Amino acid sequence: MRNSGDVPRSRRRFLVGSAALMGVAGFAREAPSATRSRAWSKSADVAVVGSGAAGLAAALSAASRGNQVIVIEKAPAIGGTTAKSDGAYWIPNNHIMRQAGIADPKDDAIRYMVRVSYPALYRDDDPRWGVGEREYELIEAYYDNAAGAIEALESMDALRSTTVALPDYLDHVPTNKPMRQRILLPKRADGNYGNGRELVRQLRLKLEAHRIEVLTKHAASRVERNARGEVIGLTVKSADGESLIQAKKAVVFASGGFTHDPDMVLNFQPGPNWGGCAVPTNQGDFVRLGIETGAMLGNMVGAWRAELVLESALESPSVARDVWQPPGDSMILVNKYGQRVVNEKRNYNERTRVHFEYDPVESEFPNMLLFMIYDQRTAELFAGNFPLPEPGDRQSYVIGARGISSLRSAIQDRLNSHAKRIGKITLSPDFAGALTRQVDRFNQDAARGVDLQFMRGKYPYDTEWHSIINSKERTDTTWPANRTSNPTVHAIDKDGPLYAIILAAGTLDTNGGPVINAKAQVLDTHGRPIPGLYGAGNCIASPAAQGYWGAGGTIGPALTFGYLAGLGASGEPAKEDT
Amino acid sequence: MRNSGDVPRSRRRFLVGSAALMGVAGFAREAPSATRSRAWSKSADVAVVGSGAAGLAAALSAASRGNQVIVIEKAPAIGGTTAKSDGAYWIPNNHIMRQAGIADPKDDAIRYMVRVSYPALYRDDDPRWGVGEREYELIEAYYDNAAGAIEALESMDALRSTTVALPDYLDHVPTNKPMRQRILLPKRADGNYGNGRELVRQLRLKLEAHRIEVLTKHAASRVERNARGEVIGLTVKSADGESLIQAKKAVVFASGGFTHDPDMVLNFQPGPNWGGCAVPTNQGDFVRLGIETGAMLGNMVGAWRAELVLESALESPSVARDVWQPPGDSMILVNKYGQRVVNEKRNYNERTRVHFEYDPVESEFPNMLLFMIYDQRTAELFAGNFPLPEPGDRQSYVIGARGISSLRSAIQDRLNSHAKRIGKITLSPDFAGALTRQVDRFNQDAARGVDLQFMRGKYPYDTEWHSIINSKERTDTTWPANRTSNPTVHAIDKDGPLYAIILAAGTLDTNGGPVINAKAQVLDTHGRPIPGLYGAGNCIASPAAQGYWGAGGTIGPALTFGYLAGLGASGEPAKEDT
Repeated sequence: MRNSGDVPRSRRRFLVGSAALMGVAGFAREAPSATRSRAWSKSADVAVVGSGAAGLAAALSAASRGNQVIVIEKAPAIGGTTAKSDGAYWIPNNHIMRQAGIADPKDDAIRYMVRVSYPALYRDDDPRWGVGEREYELIEAYYDNAAGAIEALESMDALRSTTVALPDYLDHVPTNKPMRQRILLPKRADGNYGNGRELVRQLRLKLEAHRIEVLTKHAASRVERNARGEVIGLTVKSADGESLIQAKKAVVFASGGFTHDPDMVLNFQPGPNWGGCAVPTNQGDFVRLGIETGAMLGNMVGAWRAELVLESALESPSVARDVWQPPGDSMILVNKYGQRVVNEKRNYNERTRVHFEYDPVESEFPNMLLFMIYDQRTAELFAGNFPLPEPGDRQSYVIGARGISSLRSAIQDRLNSHAKRIGKITLSPDFAGALTRQVDRFNQDAARGVDLQFMRGKYPYDTEWHSIINSKERTDTTWPANRTSNPTVHAIDKDGPLYAIILAAGTLDTNGGPVINAKAQVLDTHGRPIPGLYGAGNCIASPAAQGYWGAGGTIGPALTFGYLAGLGASGEPAKEDT
Repeated sequence: MRNSGDVPRSRRRFLVGSAALMGVAGFAREAPSATRSRAWSKSADVAVVGSGAAGLAAALSAASRGNQVIVIEKAPAIGGTTAKSDGAYWIPNNHIMRQAGIADPKDDAIRYMVRVSYPALYRDDDPRWGVGEREYELIEAYYDNAAGAIEALESMDALRSTTVALPDYLDHVPTNKPMRQRILLPKRADGNYGNGRELVRQLRLKLEAHRIEVLTKHAASRVERNARGEVIGLTVKSADGESLIQAKKAVVFASGGFTHDPDMVLNFQPGPNWGGCAVPTNQGDFVRLGIETGAMLGNMVGAWRAELVLESALESPSVARDVWQPPGDSMILVNKYGQRVVNEKRNYNERTRVHFEYDPVESEFPNMLLFMIYDQRTAELFAGNFPLPEPGDRQSYVIGARGISSLRSAIQDRLNSHAKRIGKITLSPDFAGALTRQVDRFNQDAARGVDLQFMRGKYPYDTEWHSIINSKERTDTTWPANRTSNPTVHAIDKDGPLYAIILAAGTLDTNGGPVINAKAQVLDTHGRPIPGLYGAGNCIASPAAQGYWGAGGTIGPALTFGYLAGLGASGEPAKEDT
C-alpha cells in the first residue's frame, strides 16, 4: 500500500453521500466538481483501470519510471481476458527475429497491417497504402514501438519471451509474404512457451515487486476532472460503496470491450453475437465513461471475432473456449440450407464474419448458426481437440445420429429445445438432400485433395494451423492418419454415424471504444487529447480496426499501447485538484 | 423575427472571443459555463436544429402550442434530405386507411415492425415479439403516435396527405401480411401526390405563418447547459463567427446522419460506403455534440441503405439519386466473378447489404461493386428509368460493348481509370465465361418465368414496385412489352450490344446517433433523459433500427418523433440561465 494514501472513513462517507446526491440532479455526474477539493480515499500518480495485458504493461511502464501506481480491477481476479487466452503477442520486427537475422522491414510490415485492417481502403501505390493519417499513424506507432515495448518489459525482468513459427493470418494474397516469426509467447521456467496465465503471472510478479496495489472488485464508475477539464482521478464502486481515487498525473483505461453488454452489441455490431471469451466484466464501461468524458468513439463495429459452441454460449455467454479452427478432416460446416459457406480452416476472426451474411429476400441471417458436421473418423482420430470431446467423454452439445436423415431430425429437435432463447429456427425442408449433395461434392474434391468450393488447405495458414490445432491427433485408434497432399480434407462417411455441433458467432472481445492517438492519449470529439486520459487494450478503438494480423494480434497491441500509455502518463505534469 | 431578441453586436463579439478562448483551454467547451449569465444573441422557447421533416414537424408542434421557436439550418436551403426525397411517410393505422375501413391493429403492426427491424431477435411467442423494453417502447410509441401526429399536422393546416397502394418492404414472410395502405404522400393542390419538395413546401408555409425564424447557414457547434446540466441553448457558427442562441425550454436536434463523414462511416458502418442521397451537411454533428453532452449512442451500425451509381458518387458523394430498383427485365447484377448475388428487385435497404459480404479467404468484399448488366432491349424499352438514360441521352457512367467479351474489357478499363480512388479492382480472369454461364442460367429461368436463383418477381414487392419504378416503360420502341407471368425477368440477348453500370453501396442517410425514449427525449449513458434535450430524424438512433418498414419508413418516424419532440419541448419548464 506504499503508493496510496488512506483517507479517514468518515470523510469518505461524506463524499459518497454527496456524489449520490449529485447523481440525482441528473447532470452533476457528468460535470467537473470544480469548486472544492475532493475527499480522495486513495492517491497515486497514475491510476490504471483493468489488469489484463494492457493494464499490467501500463502499470509496469509507469512504475518503472518511479511513479506511484494503483490498479483498479472490476473482477475478483487479476488478468482479465488475457488470463483466459493463449498468451501470444504478435510483434513485428521483434528482438527474437532480429537475433535470428530475419528482416521485417517497416514498409513491408506496415503495408501488411494496412492490407489486413483496411481491405477496402488498401491502395498499392499510395504512400500511406490508402489509409488516412490517423489510421496510418497508429499502425506506424505499433511497428515503431511494439518490439521496444517487449524489450523494455524483458529488460525490467517483467517478461521473458519465446517464439513459435506459424504463419500470419493473411498469408497468401499477392501483396503479402507469409511471415512466421512475429508470434511471441511467454517463456516458462522450463523453457517451453506458456499461455495467458503465464503471461499474467510474469507481469504480476513484477507488479508485486513494485508493490503496486491492485484493487480487485472495484469498478471505475466516473472520471474525475478538475476545473480545467483535466482528468485527476476516478470514482470507483465496490461492495463497500463509492470512493474516490486520485491520479495526480493520469488515468489509463486498459479495461475490456463490450462483449457482455447485449444492448451495445445490438447497437454497434454488424450481426447477431452470442457471447465470447471475454471475462463477464467486459460490459463496455469505457464506452459509457468515455462518452461522459467527451471522448470520440471509433471501431465500434469491430471485434476480435470467434466461433462459439452455441450451447456453451447459451449456458453462459462468457464461454470457456472459442473454436479456433474446427478440428478434423472429414468435417464441414453447413448452414440451415445444408450448404457450406466458408473455408473451415481460415482464421476465426475472418471466418466468423460469414455468420453475419444477410439474405435480403428472407430478411434473415442464413448463416447465423452453422452446423459442424463430422463422421466417426474425425470424432475418434481428432478427439480432444476442442470442441471434439476427449475419447470416452460425452458432451451434451454433440448431436449424434445414424445417418444424414436422422441427423436432420436430431438437429431440428435440438434447435426446437432452445426455441425460447434462439427463436424458431427451421432447417430447410431439403436439408438432408442438400447436405447429401454437399457431402458428395466435398468427398469428390477430397479425393483429389483440392477443395474447389473454398480452397480449404490451399494456404499455409490452413495446413500449418490445422497441424497445431490437431496436435492431439491420436495414434490409439484404428483410423489411419491423413497422409495425403491436403491433410485438411478427407471424405466424410455419410453412411454414419454422423455428428453435429452447432456453432454461432461470438468474440474474443469487441475492440471499439474511445479513440487514441499514437501516444495512447484518448481524443475528444475535436481530435484533441483529453489531458490526463490514456487508453489501451480492448476498451479503445483498436489500431488494427477489424483486422487480425496474426496470433497475438490482440495482446501485442494491448502490451504496446499499454506500455506507451504508462510512458505518457509518467510524463504528465501533476494536476491541480480543483 | 418576432420570437427572438437581438443583442447588441458589441456584446456578441465579446462572447465570441470568450468562447474561442474557452476552446483553447481544451476543456471548457465541454463544461457548462455555469457561473455567469450568457450573452445570448437570440432567444426563443425552443430551438430546433435541422429543417427536414423532423425539424419542421418539431417546430410546428412547438409553435402551435404558443412557443417562440427558432430553427437552425446548417445548409443554405431549408428542407434537408427530405427535400431531395420522394416525400412518402409510412404511417400505420393512418386516417386515410381508417376512413376506408381498413384495419391495422396494433399487435399486427408492431409485430411486423419488430420482425423487420430485429430479424435475429424476433420471437413469435413473446409478448414483446422478442425485443427489449426500450426497443419495444419506441416501436409502440410509433404505432401509438404516428397517425395522430399526421392528423395534428393536417388539422393545423400544415399538411395535406394522400396515399398510393404499394406493398410494404417485407411482404412475403409468413408472419406478415402484405399491407399496401400505410404509405402517405403530400397531396398537391391538383389532387395528385407530390414529393419531398412538396412536403417541405407545405410545412414551411405553416412555419412562415407562425413567423418562425429559420437561420440558414448556421451550424450548431456546442450545446449550452446551465449549472444543473439542463440544456438551455446552443452556440452556433456562421460565416459571421460564433453566437449564442437561448432555448428557454428545450433544444430539439432534428439534423442529419453521418453519411458525409468518412471517418464515422469507417468506424461505425459494416462495410464500404461510397456516399448517399443525404445533403452534404449531414456530417454527424449530433454524434459529436451528443457525446459532448453525455448522450448514449445507438444504432450506429445502421443506415437507410441504397445502391448508388459508383461514378456519380465519385463525382460527388452527395448523389442526386439512388437506384431504388434496377429497372428493366433483361437485366442482372453480377459481382466481379460474373455471378449474381441478389434478387435485383428487392428493396434498396435490404438489397444493398449484399455489398458488405466479406470473403474470409481473399480478405475482400467481393460484392463491393456490382455490375448492372443489360441488353439493348432494356436500354430502349426502359429508357429514362434511373439509372438508364433517357432515349437519345448519353451518360458517361454507361459502359457499352458489342458482346460479353468486349464488355469485360470495357468494364476493366473503366475500373482501371478510377484505380486511384477505388483501388485496383480486377474482374475475375473467368469473368466473361462466368457471366456467359450466368446469363444462360438466367435466360433458362426467364423462359419459365421463375428465377430459381433468387426468386425475383415471386413477391408482391418485386412486381408491384417494378411496375411503378418502370412507369416510364416506353411504347415508342419496337421492343414488345413483357406480358409474361413474371414481368421482372426476360432473357438477356448476350450477342449484344450489352451495357454495364457500376453500382456501389451508399445510404439515403445513416440513422444512428444519440438514443431517445418514447417521448423523443435524448438519454444519457445511464438511460436518464438529459433535461431540455430532444431528438428526431436521421441524427438519432432510429426506432426502426436497421429495418425499413415500407416507403416512407424514413420520413414517417421523422415526422412523428419530430412532432413528439416539439410536444415534449413545449411542456418543459423554462430553465435557469446559470
